[in-house]
Amino acid sequence: MKQVNVGIIGFGTVGAGTAEILLENREIIRKRVGLDIVLKRVADLDLVSDRGISLPKGVLSNDSNGLLNDPEIDIVVELIGGMTTAKSFISTALKNGKHVVTANKALLAEHGSELYEIAKKAGVNLAYEAAVGGGMPVIGALRDGLAANNTLKIIGILNGTSNYILTRMSKEGLPYEDAVNGAIKLGYAEDPPTLDVNGTDAAHKLAILISLAYGVPAPFGSIYKEGIDRLTPEDILFADQFGYCIKLLTIAQNLGDEIEARVHPAMLPKNHMLANVNEAFNAVFIEGDYVGPTLYYGQGAGRMPTGSAVVSDIMAIARKIKSNADKTSSPLGFADSEGQTIKIQSIKNLKTAYYFRFMAVDKPGVLSKISGILGERNISISSVIQKGRDADGAVPIVMLTHEAYEQDVTEALAMLDKLDILKDRTMMIRVMG
Amino acid sequence: MKQVNVGIIGFGTVGAGTAEILLENREIIRKRVGLDIVLKRVADLDLVSDRGISLPKGVLSNDSNGLLNDPEIDIVVELIGGMTTAKSFISTALKNGKHVVTANKALLAEHGSELYEIAKKAGVNLAYEAAVGGGMPVIGALRDGLAANNTLKIIGILNGTSNYILTRMSKEGLPYEDAVNGAIKLGYAEDPPTLDVNGTDAAHKLAILISLAYGVPAPFGSIYKEGIDRLTPEDILFADQFGYCIKLLTIAQNLGDEIEARVHPAMLPKNHMLANVNEAFNAVFIEGDYVGPTLYYGQGAGRMPTGSAVVSDIMAIARKIKSNADKTSSPLGFADSEGQTIKIQSIKNLKTAYYFRFMAVDKPGVLSKISGILGERNISISSVIQKGRDADGAVPIVMLTHEAYEQDVTEALAMLDKLDILKDRTMMIRVMG
Repeated sequence: MKQVNVGIIGFGTVGAGTAEILLENREIIRKRVGLDIVLKRVADLDLVSDRGISLPKGVLSNDSNGLLNDPEIDIVVELIGGMTTAKSFISTALKNGKHVVTANKALLAEHGSELYEIAKKAGVNLAYEAAVGGGMPVIGALRDGLAANNTLKIIGILNGTSNYILTRMSKEGLPYEDAVNGAIKLGYAEDPPTLDVNGTDAAHKLAILISLAYGVPAPFGSIYKEGIDRLTPEDILFADQFGYCIKLLTIAQNLGDEIEARVHPAMLPKNHMLANVNEAFNAVFIEGDYVGPTLYYGQGAGRMPTGSAVVSDIMAIARKIKSNADKTSSPLGFADSEGQTIKIQSIKNLKTAYYFRFMAVDKPGVLSKISGILGERNISISSVIQKGRDADGAVPIVMLTHEAYEQDVTEALAMLDKLDILKDRTMMIRVMG
Repeated sequence: MKQVNVGIIGFGTVGAGTAEILLENREIIRKRVGLDIVLKRVADLDLVSDRGISLPKGVLSNDSNGLLNDPEIDIVVELIGGMTTAKSFISTALKNGKHVVTANKALLAEHGSELYEIAKKAGVNLAYEAAVGGGMPVIGALRDGLAANNTLKIIGILNGTSNYILTRMSKEGLPYEDAVNGAIKLGYAEDPPTLDVNGTDAAHKLAILISLAYGVPAPFGSIYKEGIDRLTPEDILFADQFGYCIKLLTIAQNLGDEIEARVHPAMLPKNHMLANVNEAFNAVFIEGDYVGPTLYYGQGAGRMPTGSAVVSDIMAIARKIKSNADKTSSPLGFADSEGQTIKIQSIKNLKTAYYFRFMAVDKPGVLSKISGILGERNISISSVIQKGRDADGAVPIVMLTHEAYEQDVTEALAMLDKLDILKDRTMMIRVMG
């Protein structure tokens, strides 16, 4: 029986998980694919740490170049993360005619287009189910299951670390810093967890989903992003009183000539399917023009869930190899690249509802002043809560607005924050309808 | 440019939806697949009804044999439903070397194995994403996205009609009959909706999912099924007081040497992801040994969602045709058929928690009598609610039990129902942990 040989570069968390699945579930993998998938080489600089798995003798080395140039390797799995080295490894592998599987969302989001071109030229696959949502097969859903559709909307909870932190803040009333420290202690967050909590990681994943949905690389830099670090337990409590929870959402919407693409904390109605996605779980809601609303949910990260996605990509490629299919490659699921570019809408033109928490001085006329300035910018208020004063004498005034334009909101808040009736920068959270 | 020709047999709801998507999204389909997918023939006995879509001239005819024998047709789409004729059409198409796409869950669940063999022998695809969960790509998830896993558990809400009826009963307190009549009026249920409400349709879908998960046709007749027609609004209210909702669940669990497979109404904790799946929506929770828990959600039926799934199958086959892949066929996602059979566990051996509603006479010692008989069978009670008497003088006594064996429960209830302390047959609902 023919076999397919795999080489993994990067024997960290996901690398070890991938190796473990290939070895432990080898029999079921063989039965499904119809040929043996053999883990032939693993390359890593660290040859001594215990990864809780014993590789067959001679498999582990620090020779990534040997792996990349081994004519017997059919599929190279890149799991070192990061940019420059990973990019060079993937380029070399593709140019050497090897299929590549990667979980490197940052690299694909920021330099994907170059790699997709190399893969196409070489006629080899570049697969990345593991780059978004761990083991949750959302890449496959967009590329295959929903392929008949034009994608109208994507709303995701795609960063497990942020979701874990927000869950602790909601369930236990913890301040942001305490929730972060707890997450670091438990291994749910890196120290410091910058790219997770500032929205960059979620924006990377959104760029990948948009590229797949529309068949052209998304301009990562144009995706608006905002992190969760300014959120307070008070905001979560106020949101609760209005019937909402707060999640770090990644949102894309097809506006016809433009794509709305943004990552920020958002208030979500408690009866929304995404509102019950807690802890380190991920979920994505995808709406297609014909299929309507669909949702995918699963563990967004971790050795085994991510390893499961990597191995599913390896199996799909092995099936193609087995069937002697022509060498073709469509990393974005589109056989014809149109060379279009996607235009991302400026956040200024966003129209949505808003939550504001003003920290006002306790004097007559303050509410009138605030609502006056909002009114001048066509920002109309739908609910107000005013509570007793804070320890430092500031009175929280909380408002929900009807839909308004982001540019008007930005200008109104900038104007208000300059006035001496407000004692602190106003908290603004966008509200999902 | 090469093209792929499609013929649809059955121009009903889903047939019209499929045709509409192929025609309306033709351009995006062409860009994704890299060749044109042409709707060449549609066969139906009814040539006159308006389906809200105009087919190109000469496409619609009543000549299904002509379609099946047209050498230019690459893919036959069977959408007439039912058993005998559909089976004969599919067999003929496969034997004629044509790929087949179908949404016919009843046929696949009850006679799939025969068709899978014919497809394998002919080396053509037999695809059926549309057979389970409408446009929600759960077939693809099991076959590809989760392919690296051994499936541990499947829990689904797979019958939209039942879910719609239960949603009306819960939200509006309607009796079963009124909810059914409302569903029929709105077109959510057929008249009578027998196969939907008695669990048969959900069991068909479960058989398909089990076959895919384990690579061998599941013995449909061994799947335990029970419908929703005995449920009352009172049971839904009692469930609510215990923190549960009631759903028609399809459940499979890998027990190692046996598979647990059952369809019945079940109480589900309100914080379970499936508890918020309402109206006619479907959802499936799938747990793999490596990926952990995942969930898929979407519209379970309807012209467009189901059409979307049919077209995604057509596109996947067209991609294979385009790549000149060898003729291979693995309708269950397993290249090697092992010819095993799956053994379904007898429902008698199920161990789960239970809800009972006894309608008792209002006399001293009744509760003691009931709990005594339950205790003799090792059925231990975790909560009891006893409310005021009914209009006809019966007192509802409601209990939740700890885990017990189904056989013990069946025997205890049979013994109790013979006693004159109970005025009506006891309601028993299984409880998910």
